[in-house]
Amino acid sequence: MENLPNSIEIGFVSSNVQKYKEIYKVFLQKSKIQLKFLNMILSEIQSDSLEEIAKFSLKTCFQKDFTIPYFVEDSGLFIETLNGFPGPYSSYVLKTIGLWGILKLLEEKDNRKAFFQSSIALYFNKKIYLFTGRVNGIISASVSESGWGYDPVFIPSKGDGKTFGELGEKKYSLSHRYLAVCKLISFLNEEYKLGS
Amino acid sequence: MENLPNSIEIGFVSSNVQKYKEIYKVFLQKSKIQLKFLNMILSEIQSDSLEEIAKFSLKTCFQKDFTIPYFVEDSGLFIETLNGFPGPYSSYVLKTIGLWGILKLLEEKDNRKAFFQSSIALYFNKKIYLFTGRVNGIISASVSESGWGYDPVFIPSKGDGKTFGELGEKKYSLSHRYLAVCKLISFLNEEYKLGS
Repeated sequence: MENLPNSIEIGFVSSNVQKYKEIYKVFLQKSKIQLKFLNMILSEIQSDSLEEIAKFSLKTCFQKDFTIPYFVEDSGLFIETLNGFPGPYSSYVLKTIGLWGILKLLEEKDNRKAFFQSSIALYFNKKIYLFTGRVNGIISASVSESGWGYDPVFIPSKGDGKTFGELGEKKYSLSHRYLAVCKLISFLNEEYKLGS
Repeated sequence: MENLPNSIEIGFVSSNVQKYKEIYKVFLQKSKIQLKFLNMILSEIQSDSLEEIAKFSLKTCFQKDFTIPYFVEDSGLFIETLNGFPGPYSSYVLKTIGLWGILKLLEEKDNRKAFFQSSIALYFNKKIYLFTGRVNGIISASVSESGWGYDPVFIPSKGDGKTFGELGEKKYSLSHRYLAVCKLISFLNEEYKLGS
């Protein structure tokens, strides 16, 4: 009997159901692998590098002895003229100074370039693999009405001048997370010899 | 033969020699215990709590099997109207948006209240102990010429209206770190039955 491809499972370790739903959609579209939600509050290290943070968080899962391969994801917004701020501390900055603070810091600045990055660390066959997605854009002058997180102020280069928030569903296939997950899925499809 | 008090040693684990020098002076003044510098780059966890960060860093030292009791220290500046920002990420914020960024965020703000906190985690007789020092003050409207870190913009309540930077040597016995170290020393003097 043929080994059914849908018996292959990968775990996404996170406490963020929204992220899981977003990543689940990409898996559904691009792979026969089943994505499982492994609910866990991850520890994060202080570092300027999202890859290092994701790798550290992944390692804290080793003690859990999950029986399937699994991955974690970390993301951040990096603003050029602010030397990469808020970067790996994007969540903390959002909940303290918020979007107001970001726009305040960029008042009178000509350079409003920024990028969103998503880094995934995967534990597979006793090895760690990293996948990164990045989207360039600029920070808008005002806050758009729709979207959450930094979406109301981030205008991606390929988004017709709209913020991630204004792009709604269209944001999905433009996002840094989408790009990182696509790289992860390509790797897994290859390893499991599955067509995409 | 009497057990000489100066044979008692405590280690300060850090990669920051300046901090060591500052803490060394307090030990010299208030205790017969010898302070040793245990040079090590510490890992720090992401957390809103300095105590949690210090405790985590301390635990990463366990693998080193130091033969003497030791402690780590973490500090941060918490600005009330910015919901505690930059808090535990004070170093990162300083190297990205700098003092300019802090003053920019406080433009047009009436409330300029802030406090500096220092948290020490000590490993002693196989137990973890925490000591915290806090200094209230306000953020100045401009950057004073002297001092490093946030010292040129922090005016402590008990500092005659001068910034930490302008207070120079007088800052020493007013600082959050001094207060935390004093608590640590009181505890150790008590444990070792030494007079202060």
